[in-house]
Amino acid sequence: MALTGVLRPGHVQIRVLELEPAVKHYRDVLGLKEMARDPKNKRVFLKGWDEHDHHSVVLREADEAGLDYMGWKVDSEATLKKLAGDIDHSGLCQDLEWIPEGEHPETGERFRFTIPTGHVMELYAYRKIVGNGCGTDGDDMNPEPWPEGLFGIAPHRFDHCLLYGDDLDGTVKLFTEVLGFGLAEQVTAGPEGKLMIGAFLTCANKPHDVAFIRQPVKGKFHHASFLLGSWEQVLRAGDILSRHKTSIDIGPTRHGITRGETIYFFDPSGNRNEVFSGGYTYYPDKPVITWTEAELGTAIFYHDRKLNEAFLSVFT
Amino acid sequence: MALTGVLRPGHVQIRVLELEPAVKHYRDVLGLKEMARDPKNKRVFLKGWDEHDHHSVVLREADEAGLDYMGWKVDSEATLKKLAGDIDHSGLCQDLEWIPEGEHPETGERFRFTIPTGHVMELYAYRKIVGNGCGTDGDDMNPEPWPEGLFGIAPHRFDHCLLYGDDLDGTVKLFTEVLGFGLAEQVTAGPEGKLMIGAFLTCANKPHDVAFIRQPVKGKFHHASFLLGSWEQVLRAGDILSRHKTSIDIGPTRHGITRGETIYFFDPSGNRNEVFSGGYTYYPDKPVITWTEAELGTAIFYHDRKLNEAFLSVFT
Amino acid sequence: MALTGVLRPGHVQIRVLELEPAVKHYRDVLGLKEMARDPKNKRVFLKGWDEHDHHSVVLREADEAGLDYMGWKVDSEATLKKLAGDIDHSGLCQDLEWIPEGEHPETGERFRFTIPTGHVMELYAYRKIVGNGCGTDGDDMNPEPWPEGLFGIAPHRFDHCLLYGDDLDGTVKLFTEVLGFGLAEQVTAGPEGKLMIGAFLTCANKPHDVAFIRQPVKGKFHHASFLLGSWEQVLRAGDILSRHKTSIDIGPTRHGITRGETIYFFDPSGNRNEVFSGGYTYYPDKPVITWTEAELGTAIFYHDRKLNEAFLSVFT
Amino acid sequence: MALTGVLRPGHVQIRVLELEPAVKHYRDVLGLKEMARDPKNKRVFLKGWDEHDHHSVVLREADEAGLDYMGWKVDSEATLKKLAGDIDHSGLCQDLEWIPEGEHPETGERFRFTIPTGHVMELYAYRKIVGNGCGTDGDDMNPEPWPEGLFGIAPHRFDHCLLYGDDLDGTVKLFTEVLGFGLAEQVTAGPEGKLMIGAFLTCANKPHDVAFIRQPVKGKFHHASFLLGSWEQVLRAGDILSRHKTSIDIGPTRHGITRGETIYFFDPSGNRNEVFSGGYTYYPDKPVITWTEAELGTAIFYHDRKLNEAFLSVFT
Repeated sequence: MALTGVLRPGHVQIRVLELEPAVKHYRDVLGLKEMARDPKNKRVFLKGWDEHDHHSVVLREADEAGLDYMGWKVDSEATLKKLAGDIDHSGLCQDLEWIPEGEHPETGERFRFTIPTGHVMELYAYRKIVGNGCGTDGDDMNPEPWPEGLFGIAPHRFDHCLLYGDDLDGTVKLFTEVLGFGLAEQVTAGPEGKLMIGAFLTCANKPHDVAFIRQPVKGKFHHASFLLGSWEQVLRAGDILSRHKTSIDIGPTRHGITRGETIYFFDPSGNRNEVFSGGYTYYPDKPVITWTEAELGTAIFYHDRKLNEAFLSVFT
Repeated sequence: MALTGVLRPGHVQIRVLELEPAVKHYRDVLGLKEMARDPKNKRVFLKGWDEHDHHSVVLREADEAGLDYMGWKVDSEATLKKLAGDIDHSGLCQDLEWIPEGEHPETGERFRFTIPTGHVMELYAYRKIVGNGCGTDGDDMNPEPWPEGLFGIAPHRFDHCLLYGDDLDGTVKLFTEVLGFGLAEQVTAGPEGKLMIGAFLTCANKPHDVAFIRQPVKGKFHHASFLLGSWEQVLRAGDILSRHKTSIDIGPTRHGITRGETIYFFDPSGNRNEVFSGGYTYYPDKPVITWTEAELGTAIFYHDRKLNEAFLSVFT
Repeated sequence: MALTGVLRPGHVQIRVLELEPAVKHYRDVLGLKEMARDPKNKRVFLKGWDEHDHHSVVLREADEAGLDYMGWKVDSEATLKKLAGDIDHSGLCQDLEWIPEGEHPETGERFRFTIPTGHVMELYAYRKIVGNGCGTDGDDMNPEPWPEGLFGIAPHRFDHCLLYGDDLDGTVKLFTEVLGFGLAEQVTAGPEGKLMIGAFLTCANKPHDVAFIRQPVKGKFHHASFLLGSWEQVLRAGDILSRHKTSIDIGPTRHGITRGETIYFFDPSGNRNEVFSGGYTYYPDKPVITWTEAELGTAIFYHDRKLNEAFLSVFT
Repeated sequence: MALTGVLRPGHVQIRVLELEPAVKHYRDVLGLKEMARDPKNKRVFLKGWDEHDHHSVVLREADEAGLDYMGWKVDSEATLKKLAGDIDHSGLCQDLEWIPEGEHPETGERFRFTIPTGHVMELYAYRKIVGNGCGTDGDDMNPEPWPEGLFGIAPHRFDHCLLYGDDLDGTVKLFTEVLGFGLAEQVTAGPEGKLMIGAFLTCANKPHDVAFIRQPVKGKFHHASFLLGSWEQVLRAGDILSRHKTSIDIGPTRHGITRGETIYFFDPSGNRNEVFSGGYTYYPDKPVITWTEAELGTAIFYHDRKLNEAFLSVFT
């Protein structure tokens, strides 16, 4: 009991148009640590400093930017098998597939499936623990609060994705009824506010681990987000992005949804990234927060109280 | 799945020598909201602003300061019944008892038990949700990030307790094997470092929800801690405490354990309080952090690298 | 020696279209303290909490928004007389005039003059010191770091104005050669970058006490700025502005010029306000920072690296 | 006018017992930049990143720790000559001496004198400006808000010293009447509170540029202080100090005097350092803040409200 089943977003594989500029962005500006390369599949594996697992971000060179897939760490092999069966039985997903151990370095077998909004998701139970570099005698003994040698923005970890797709109802049903997620916040529209157009879903205490916006597309990627420790680190991130002439979409500002503090910016292929901090502690018995369509702007950008042009139109 | 079973520390009942000075401290300086009084039992019920439930802190006038009990919110009545049975069958606890609905206002039946370190704990499944005051049209519609009218230090929520007791092994066994908690960090001592002298236990993503230090006493109370949103709020808390001439034990500083930022101070009855911020995201597959006895000072007060005199000797 | 002559911007009189909504904005949202009213001239006098003098902001009801005048505190009556003479002899100013003692409450005689960019400025040597409310036994004994009872955004003080006008050369000559200011930063344009289009002027250690942008207008008002203590207070200001549905122009963000952290927003009459924090320590021997026209966007909004539409077109 | 005469504390020469450990501390932990060495006199010259002048901190190997001298930058050669004469005529100082150009690298002639509390002070008008490394095309063009490659604590600048000595009255008279400083704050004691035991003196807008405590000693050194940009940087400083096992005296905490946020720590020779942030904007017409002896603890350490043992007894 306590925290079981799907534990967290464990990886995101992002398509980039050219690998080397992407690595420069994610490693040297964003400040993730490069962990491994897969030349055959033109992939690079990276992690945030406070992630204990081998990697969380995978860049893959491709002809088009966007999301290949998100992966979710589950608590055990037994849970992996059980959830694979549950997903199959739910009839909500397509293209179910087992990816063999080792297709990601230091990672076990993964169960892959396509959800109703067209995004590819994966579950896995094993990835090698490499530590966060804080411990002085092995990773887990007498650690410092943060490791030496951080550079760039240096987020703590990959945190969540926001995704655009059409069959929001099917995806929310899958996450809440099959995968055990909670609906922390929703945006509603339509007659009597009965159409859910945004869903912020969580598998633990964070205000979201993945979010979906209803849009008439399949499998689209709005952003991948990385966790910072404070609002001052968000300012510092903005400074570093500007110094490197990284294209900033919006921010620093606050979200209404999650209360988080944020900057949106773009990688060299046009994939949106976010660094954010803050947010509340979610519990499954917390009432669902509902944002009405009239307050959508405030929900997304709390200070401006309106969407910027890019929010709905720019994605990969 | 995801977050189930024991969800969080839901209440702490603290004994105070005089009710009115205690209320002035917890309400007017610490900035909790007074929610109800129980004159018959000389009790006052309060909550932090970001807690949705009716109350979390209970002050009870008594001849001696200290902890009456901590209470834990579980996810359902079924879980409450199941855990009550599991605790009974474990043989680890004493004085098992059902407290009837309504003994706390707006709260259902509670299952009470005494753990091996001598502390009284409770489980409960129902407390009225009153909201956090951020929503403009009902609590859950289009909320602001924080409510108007905050005063005092205004912590977000009651966060955890640190407790002193003798049978640490029994208590850790109960929390990890029966109640589903994870051991986030431990302090070890003795020959080959095999004696656990401190245990930091969590039921979700926080680095601790309750902690125990092995001391040759039963049922003692080191501190109750309240969550702040930033290190700057810790500074502001220090300023408010000083203005009110509240006795500060130590801080602002950082803990090695949890990485949290902290001030310890005392209520008028000598019970220790903490306000803190920060800390990492715990997951059950994270390696246990081990602090050796030689680094105990660093573990507790990271900047000073040594315990202050009060840490081990002053408790209630 | 040390700090003499013109000490600081001491007041700004702002025209507002309706007095009561303006007071609600400057007092209840911005959080200045109302100090006095002048019903005959439809004026309200306010101050920031850490200003020791009686008032710094004057709101005057008028048919058109904008700046009536800025006033500068000088170190003595002798300096006031001397600078009045110097201004007269410089031939740079028009409409020289002595305003009698008491026209502002608790304020001595003021010397008024119109500078080459068309703005009205004043010098004065006396205003009653009322204190900042931090002292517990009289204002200056054993003070707390900040007073109780702050509300709204609660800036420390009125800090500077940014003004638009045509004869920038004349105004810069006046401030640097007659009034003893330093040029901390400039923006240049034109052939060989020889045309100064922005001047950031300081009379002490702050990176600016007044700034001018060359625009083909006379006496226009871009914003009045108020000092906050930290970037976290800038976030909090943004939250308070949003809660009150105050129109935010841009921010939170960082300026390239001054390095300050900022939000721009509008009072109900359309006058722009700023709250900001940070910035470096200026000394008169520091090299002048020069921004080229190509980097004007970065100079103003360091993260976006471009001007927003309102910056050049919206002023009063 | 405006800011003239003595502009700022420009250098401090500190005696250290061994040069290499001292350099490791001031360069690698504190994060000053090494600028030059003087092997003959066993000296190393360093600066903070936001100082434009060639150096500000001088370490000299000697048999005893302590302060050799502080140096003050004045606005011109004419002022240097004038103040040298004024100091001579005041009769307050001893051992007046001109130090030839070049005795410090990149520095003009210095006028040296011993003040009534026994400290050696210097005035100088010229030091080569080397810039702060923020500009992209020469130091002063289109600068970034902070330079790349900062390491260690990386304070902005050398800020002030606190010194212990006996003839406080003579020294205060010198600084206020001859050198043009303002008395920002004082601590008083004795019958009717008429004995000044602490004086906090400023030559510009900072709450202090040098401070003196009356103690029955001559020429003693309490600490040299370095400026940080925020309270979060003070926390980070504490973390870096702890990681390097630097001896921390006290903090992070807030001073009552100046309102500044602080950590005190020791260099390997036992000289006390401080990093601090915050504080108010001083003006010469601000009332002097007076702390009574009963509140001395609060004045120094605002949160603890009492002195720690080392404050009065440990100095070099």
